[in-house]
Amino acid sequence: MGQSSRAHPGGRTIDWRDGAIVIIDQTALPDEVRWLEIDDVDVLAEAIKRLAVRGAMALGVAGALGVALAARVPTGDPRLAVERAARVLEDARPTAVNLAVGIRRVVAASVNGPAAALAEALRIRDEDIEANWAIGIRGAAYLRGRRRVLTHCNAGALAGVEWGTALSVIRALHVEGSLDEVFAAETRPLLQGARLTTWELGRLSIPHRLIVDGAAAGLILGGRIDAVVVGADRIAANGDVANKVGTLSHALAASRAGIPFVVAAPESTIDPRTPDGAGIPIEERSEEEVLTVRGRHIAPAGTRALNPAFDVTPADLVTAIITERRTIITGRDAVLDGPPVGAHAS
Amino acid sequence: MGQSSRAHPGGRTIDWRDGAIVIIDQTALPDEVRWLEIDDVDVLAEAIKRLAVRGAMALGVAGALGVALAARVPTGDPRLAVERAARVLEDARPTAVNLAVGIRRVVAASVNGPAAALAEALRIRDEDIEANWAIGIRGAAYLRGRRRVLTHCNAGALAGVEWGTALSVIRALHVEGSLDEVFAAETRPLLQGARLTTWELGRLSIPHRLIVDGAAAGLILGGRIDAVVVGADRIAANGDVANKVGTLSHALAASRAGIPFVVAAPESTIDPRTPDGAGIPIEERSEEEVLTVRGRHIAPAGTRALNPAFDVTPADLVTAIITERRTIITGRDAVLDGPPVGAHAS
Repeated sequence: MGQSSRAHPGGRTIDWRDGAIVIIDQTALPDEVRWLEIDDVDVLAEAIKRLAVRGAMALGVAGALGVALAARVPTGDPRLAVERAARVLEDARPTAVNLAVGIRRVVAASVNGPAAALAEALRIRDEDIEANWAIGIRGAAYLRGRRRVLTHCNAGALAGVEWGTALSVIRALHVEGSLDEVFAAETRPLLQGARLTTWELGRLSIPHRLIVDGAAAGLILGGRIDAVVVGADRIAANGDVANKVGTLSHALAASRAGIPFVVAAPESTIDPRTPDGAGIPIEERSEEEVLTVRGRHIAPAGTRALNPAFDVTPADLVTAIITERRTIITGRDAVLDGPPVGAHAS
Repeated sequence: MGQSSRAHPGGRTIDWRDGAIVIIDQTALPDEVRWLEIDDVDVLAEAIKRLAVRGAMALGVAGALGVALAARVPTGDPRLAVERAARVLEDARPTAVNLAVGIRRVVAASVNGPAAALAEALRIRDEDIEANWAIGIRGAAYLRGRRRVLTHCNAGALAGVEWGTALSVIRALHVEGSLDEVFAAETRPLLQGARLTTWELGRLSIPHRLIVDGAAAGLILGGRIDAVVVGADRIAANGDVANKVGTLSHALAASRAGIPFVVAAPESTIDPRTPDGAGIPIEERSEEEVLTVRGRHIAPAGTRALNPAFDVTPADLVTAIITERRTIITGRDAVLDGPPVGAHAS
């Protein structure tokens, strides 16, 4: 069995059950809530590529569980199976650092056998769940009094495990009663804002309205939005932030308007090995994603497209980075917490 | 007959023939080239509202011809018919100043009878055709050496009569051989960039690629775009520019990157009666336009949306305004050319 679609009983959007990875298929939302059970590394890599599972932390957990899977049911030499799985999964999405971090941690643990590999993967899952909570509470404290908040793409439970990052902040603000409305930017080309964020906000009964990505700047400069909060796919050592394409526009507008632009992400998203944004590889995805919307063609036949999946927001446009342990005020605080990885190597 | 769909022989996208207004139905593009013949003011107003005809200059010509139509075939008192037509047409789109200007000019001319009204409307059409040319040549001179140009929405022949404004500049650069590639931002919600600009560029054999609106900022800050050129729906006396929603983001990115952000528009788009952008009414259109893409729903049922059709780019983000007569360097040159309308009244 490569994948099936048995319903998942729990509230988690990715988990491990009966020797398989269980994930909600994000490409089917919001039309259908479809669960996938995956017990094959290549099927998992394909699911990651087509964004059935996406979002920084969810990818970290998916990558970790994928390596644990390879360690459990190797075909041939277990070391080779683990290494092959790590390579296949890491290549599926080049920008998100959590994917690589999750994979590497489980590869390291797998030297002690399949049980140790699985234990490490489940530890990553549990750490993420706790980090999601802490980010929400810390971020809400930072943004208290900002009643109309814009978010981009989906950095919610679907991108995490139970709460997400940016949506965890929004959820905490809502619980405190200090939130009037969320503006969800639709996030072309794949419409994660329109399909996923609205779906999550609706289930949480948080008031929200959908806008096209291009409408955000005018609303921000027009004084109709009080703060922007987004997730991140990779944060460079200098604080430059790679996130879903379209994020940078919101940061430019927030900076001009003098409202906070906050990045909510776990410590694991900070990549000490990437000095600045110029070093972050930007995945270019297929032209079809731009040329179609939910399967429908929008441009004349033969039109070419360019489809960068991410952009880099320079650190000086980021007001604060909220992690599970710190509130990093960009320009005041060091982003790197302690010596960078590899600093002792030379 | 309210409208029919006989093929139009000429290259113009809006014209007058045999007592009717002939327009290309922009909502059917690029799937179908459909021509409408309209001889009824209410049908014309409806066509304007649903964006069958759109774009600043095309709207000016449409409004002018609409009033000429009312003056020709009045039902009852000719004065009342003209005034009613002016009101109905002006209310169809509140942001575009050219629509109101075209209407007012023909209302004034109509005191000398229907022939004078029609002559004035055709004069507006011919002035627009000449202005399009002049804008293209002047804009290409200003942008010479900028080989990769981004444009937003559609400011081409479809928005003008024969050449358009921003696309006239691009066309002139292409003819000169000094253009490598155009990036067309798709322009959600109604995808005028994806549907109309790519269609025009394809017919002109100008190399181009489609991008989502949110990708522009990253490409601009990444050094992959050399200039931005857009049209305008209204320019305030201080140089603030109202244009299709999403324009402001490109201006913010261009300013940060230090590349030119150029507005190409006829003098008639400058509204001396609006002191600054705060005085420009921003049309809010139906939520459905955001919640659907070409008829297909993209968000969960019951999702609310906010749909401002335009945004305002502050004058300090505009490098130059190119008109048929002047290259206005914002911050150096006065936008108003001579005393403002009504200056002698007080």
